[in-house]
Amino acid sequence: MSLTFEISAETAAGGRRAELHLPHQTVQTPVFMPVGTQGTVKAVAQDVLEALGAEIILGNTYHLYLRPGHASIRRMGGLHRFISWRRAMLTDSGGFQVFSLNALRKVTDDGVRFRSHLDGSSHMFTPEHSMDVQIALGADIAMAFDECTEYPADRKRAEESLRLTMAWARRSLEHHRAHRHEVPWNGARGEATQNLFGIVQGGMYTDLRRQCAEQLVEMDFDGYAIRGLSVGEPRDLTQEMIAEVLPLLPKDKPRYVMGVGYPDEIEQYARMGVDMMDCVLPTRAARHGLLFTSQGRVNIKNKQYAEDENPPDPECGCPVCRRYSRAYLRHLMQAGEALSGTLNTIHNLAYYLGIMERVRGSLASGG
Amino acid sequence: MSLTFEISAETAAGGRRAELHLPHQTVQTPVFMPVGTQGTVKAVAQDVLEALGAEIILGNTYHLYLRPGHASIRRMGGLHRFISWRRAMLTDSGGFQVFSLNALRKVTDDGVRFRSHLDGSSHMFTPEHSMDVQIALGADIAMAFDECTEYPADRKRAEESLRLTMAWARRSLEHHRAHRHEVPWNGARGEATQNLFGIVQGGMYTDLRRQCAEQLVEMDFDGYAIRGLSVGEPRDLTQEMIAEVLPLLPKDKPRYVMGVGYPDEIEQYARMGVDMMDCVLPTRAARHGLLFTSQGRVNIKNKQYAEDENPPDPECGCPVCRRYSRAYLRHLMQAGEALSGTLNTIHNLAYYLGIMERVRGSLASGG
Repeated sequence: MSLTFEISAETAAGGRRAELHLPHQTVQTPVFMPVGTQGTVKAVAQDVLEALGAEIILGNTYHLYLRPGHASIRRMGGLHRFISWRRAMLTDSGGFQVFSLNALRKVTDDGVRFRSHLDGSSHMFTPEHSMDVQIALGADIAMAFDECTEYPADRKRAEESLRLTMAWARRSLEHHRAHRHEVPWNGARGEATQNLFGIVQGGMYTDLRRQCAEQLVEMDFDGYAIRGLSVGEPRDLTQEMIAEVLPLLPKDKPRYVMGVGYPDEIEQYARMGVDMMDCVLPTRAARHGLLFTSQGRVNIKNKQYAEDENPPDPECGCPVCRRYSRAYLRHLMQAGEALSGTLNTIHNLAYYLGIMERVRGSLASGG
Repeated sequence: MSLTFEISAETAAGGRRAELHLPHQTVQTPVFMPVGTQGTVKAVAQDVLEALGAEIILGNTYHLYLRPGHASIRRMGGLHRFISWRRAMLTDSGGFQVFSLNALRKVTDDGVRFRSHLDGSSHMFTPEHSMDVQIALGADIAMAFDECTEYPADRKRAEESLRLTMAWARRSLEHHRAHRHEVPWNGARGEATQNLFGIVQGGMYTDLRRQCAEQLVEMDFDGYAIRGLSVGEPRDLTQEMIAEVLPLLPKDKPRYVMGVGYPDEIEQYARMGVDMMDCVLPTRAARHGLLFTSQGRVNIKNKQYAEDENPPDPECGCPVCRRYSRAYLRHLMQAGEALSGTLNTIHNLAYYLGIMERVRGSLASGG
């Protein structure tokens, strides 16, 4: 284990205010992690992310493996150094993108064969290979290689998918334990090296989720994630699955729900005891002109904002709201200007990070 | 006149180190002005431009007239306020874009009828209308409405074009003098209001250039520009035209060569006595991956930079060179990431602004 997780306050509802000490950064949790798929949080420079208070960002194994290649990144000292990000990083295992970007993938017990979405070339991810790639990238946290159960999935499909995920989790862990010290920054951070999180799958079947969680905990990962939620199911069901799994996970390790969600969701789950979340929503929506604000959603393309001199969110203190008007942001979007994506993204990230900051304060004071 | 131009040093070659006091900003000259066509220097936020030391940027009358519309910008307090730029601005008259973006334009003595490149709608720019639009935008400096002589142009065509430019210069000045106090910020900067620069045309004919310059000076503009250079002619000819015109312009007013140029050109012209220059080159080239550096041009797309951990320019102290490698910039470009355009542009602008800073220091110390 190359992390420590110090809880400073807990609420009756299960929410936790904690510090997650990772090799490159101590992260205040609950935390929202901006997604930086290709080694960049789209349209936002690293110093701006730092100023917004982002302490940990995501990278994506699938994309970085294909371009520029993990061997190349390793030769240049790992992902932190390659993209000049000094704080914490987490890489997803690549599985999710193989499943979402490849219609022609072929799954066997060994792993997944797929074609590059860039040039059609054929590639194979096994749990061992995903670990090797993630170790070469050298994030603070790597993720086990899992099979992503689609929604809806019938019981038989969910069971079969879970069987693969469990076998792959075991192989991921074994390979990672044997090679984790090969991260590019090995030795530079004392004894610290890369952490590996297990991923709870099981579709929308509570007993499968429970079974998965229990087995993963037995294997003893450095942290635990829940994937396969917020994929089209009703919100109640998402919440039910999270509530079912959380009590089964060790209290003294971080809990991560992957790929969620809307502003009210991330607050709700944080209050239930989820410590980490990530989602492309704030960044992707921003590029399409959808801003999240204290007054609800603002579609900045709307004509009603053409001469609106108010900031995107009058209650927001982010660099965009302090300086620019809705009218200007609308103009940038209408004109197809690159600055549009940048400013919209900065605001949405500030809004998401601000929610988590508020929740952390609330949890610290007991509620 | 709403500017003062204080020369602190002059060289034997004619170069001048000066301060140009404009309503919104005192500008150190010689100055390079980043181009912000649609109310944004493409891909770079205003606070970053400020940090780079940009004291004056351009806006474009043609683009802003079509979208979002000058009346709308006026209602929102003018262009400075609309885009949140507190320093100086200059707007071009729209003529150049009408000529370069409209194959089907129709020129009469009255003005130019053209079709919008956005929706094909029909519009007319006259000198009076261009002044009205520029006054509504409210930059510190407006430009006379000129006809842009193409290159090459035979003598007859150059003469005819010049006849129009001169008639339009007179009408521009007359209308501007009568309405300049209608800028949106009138009264907010003491007596100061908008300045108008005349534009020397005349193709590659020195006698036409001379004739144009003399007549414009007689009209008494607030400053003088030279347009229609760097349009494909040999560099010697550009230099000859500038050398021919500069001595005819009043010493105590700023001299502006429009639309130049490469790094060595802007240095050369500044040393000849040109006070202001603008060009899309550093910003446009950046978006195509061409970086200007102290070691020459770097095409960041080249494979040779795939694992090059050096900064774009080892001698540059800009925020990009201080933090990122050529390998990372290449990756961003290959991956089609928005951050590519942003970082490349920041470096190129820093390089251009740095050249001018160095030239100013050199001129101040006599050479």
